[in-house]
Amino acid sequence: MTATSGAPLRATVLGTGSWGTTFAAVLADAGCDVTVWGRSDAVVRQIADEHRNEAYLPGIDLPAGITATTDALAAVVDADLVAVAVPSQVARATLAPLKGALRLDAVAVSLMKGVELGTDRRMSEVIAESLDLPAERVAVVSGPNLAREIARRQPTATVVAATSDATARLVSGAVASSYFRPYTNPDVVGVELCGAVKNVIALAVGISQGRGLGYNTMATVITRGLVEITRLGLALGADPATFPGLAGMGDLMATCASPDSRNHTLGGHIGRGMGLEEAIAATGGTAEAVKTCRPVLELARRLDIDMPITEAVVNVLYEGLPVDQLAPTLLSRPRRSEAVQR
Amino acid sequence: MTATSGAPLRATVLGTGSWGTTFAAVLADAGCDVTVWGRSDAVVRQIADEHRNEAYLPGIDLPAGITATTDALAAVVDADLVAVAVPSQVARATLAPLKGALRLDAVAVSLMKGVELGTDRRMSEVIAESLDLPAERVAVVSGPNLAREIARRQPTATVVAATSDATARLVSGAVASSYFRPYTNPDVVGVELCGAVKNVIALAVGISQGRGLGYNTMATVITRGLVEITRLGLALGADPATFPGLAGMGDLMATCASPDSRNHTLGGHIGRGMGLEEAIAATGGTAEAVKTCRPVLELARRLDIDMPITEAVVNVLYEGLPVDQLAPTLLSRPRRSEAVQR
Repeated sequence: MTATSGAPLRATVLGTGSWGTTFAAVLADAGCDVTVWGRSDAVVRQIADEHRNEAYLPGIDLPAGITATTDALAAVVDADLVAVAVPSQVARATLAPLKGALRLDAVAVSLMKGVELGTDRRMSEVIAESLDLPAERVAVVSGPNLAREIARRQPTATVVAATSDATARLVSGAVASSYFRPYTNPDVVGVELCGAVKNVIALAVGISQGRGLGYNTMATVITRGLVEITRLGLALGADPATFPGLAGMGDLMATCASPDSRNHTLGGHIGRGMGLEEAIAATGGTAEAVKTCRPVLELARRLDIDMPITEAVVNVLYEGLPVDQLAPTLLSRPRRSEAVQR
Repeated sequence: MTATSGAPLRATVLGTGSWGTTFAAVLADAGCDVTVWGRSDAVVRQIADEHRNEAYLPGIDLPAGITATTDALAAVVDADLVAVAVPSQVARATLAPLKGALRLDAVAVSLMKGVELGTDRRMSEVIAESLDLPAERVAVVSGPNLAREIARRQPTATVVAATSDATARLVSGAVASSYFRPYTNPDVVGVELCGAVKNVIALAVGISQGRGLGYNTMATVITRGLVEITRLGLALGADPATFPGLAGMGDLMATCASPDSRNHTLGGHIGRGMGLEEAIAATGGTAEAVKTCRPVLELARRLDIDMPITEAVVNVLYEGLPVDQLAPTLLSRPRRSEAVQR
């Protein structure tokens, strides 16, 4: 791979949202030749010509070397690394036209946090299937990685998960810089589940804060939330050490503490009494958890795993559970101990 | 014990700070006959006559049944339960005059979070030694328990730790109410260590926020902080399940998220460039972590345990480490994996 040849790595990012654009800047600052693909002519031109993406990263100057295009096929054919940062439910449709187009030694990176509706697939599985890549050439990047802070080059640690150590090291080398520090982890299943379910927990935290409950409740919901993520992960063969780490507890905490998280914000609107459609409008668009909560709960039910917070979120969003019954539901469940596995 | 006889339990709280006063209200709301002891005539009279403690819980109405006194001996002689909520470094001197005064079947509860300077004793050990009680009659109450939220009767979960199940159940029964939900845990060592060291981590988070770093850094410091607390706890025989629970992760998160924490606030002043004395003055008094960080680090060194965040806090507070070197110290340590035990 070019990573070891001395020439800069050619990296392509699919998606011009805040995380995709920020990740392009991370790759460029780490020394890669970076191309960004987006659907919108206007956004692509703003990135290429003004080195800005005002809609998602207002006030941030992007590295000048980043090129941008609306031609996805041209963007990926020569790439050593293709990072995918589109909304999780459109990933399969976005990638389908690119099947077979990547170089045989290219690696793909999932920046997406979700589970596919209908198939319950993790995003790295969707990428591997859609692009016809072997699983060992797909990595996942996840951690306490709020895009707007990284775009300001604040120091951040992250986790690069891949079943192949060579893939993990290639991706780590492509992103490492003075402010972005990757750590590798072979537990792709655990890292991806943490990323998907944390949005559901952040939505629950938003609801409780929207109801006027404070930091004690927030901490309790997050703590019990990590327990239910862990329970699901263990049933799917994940490594228990992943959950208290940066991609588990770290990401969950950053997401739940930040006022910028859309899941958190949308939950706040629901907590203050809005219906789902109204809350989506007030948030300025939907949030991953709105799509992810049901496939996660279905998966848990098939595995006979108890996920009371996820269940409460589904019930509030889709089953008409009154929002003022959420806090009692979360805090009053009979429990004998705090243990993970029951 | 009176808990099972039908008569109300007689409970005494030593200390009129915000947590002592709030815990008195919790006990009263749970049906106990409650007496509060404090040093200050004015505060004691305000609690007894106006059902208020304006200095610590402004605007909060306390249950009218709480009595208050400056006579500690009179307050404890008939008590079924004596809760201690004085600053950790004065606990031994405060309790010394009460040695042998408690009823033979009374239980004590530590509400304190710290380690004794000079002896490295946990607070439940200081209580047992000072009052000459067997360890099995001393419980610890800890969790995501920000006093001001509980004083407003917001729903909160907590952990009651005691080596004796009978003691744990007595204390749980004494505090349980519609808004305060106790869960028992036999791991006194783990619960107390979490309570003591979390203040040091909250101070580190305050410093990083004072330097202008955001939620990614906060989440990373908390995540790595819990790893070092766990490492110390395992070396001392604690149960690994305690650390991701309410008394570990839960309390750590609530403390680090709340703007009310004195440890967090003092760290913020240090992060913005104040010296220790100046920061203590700006905070309006010292914070537990200022006293606790050194005995915790000494304990870790004796056990050959690596606690880089605690060490960095000690170095900034006492050894002249420039504060702008704290973040690099925290984030740039070479690490191969995220595992607890290295």
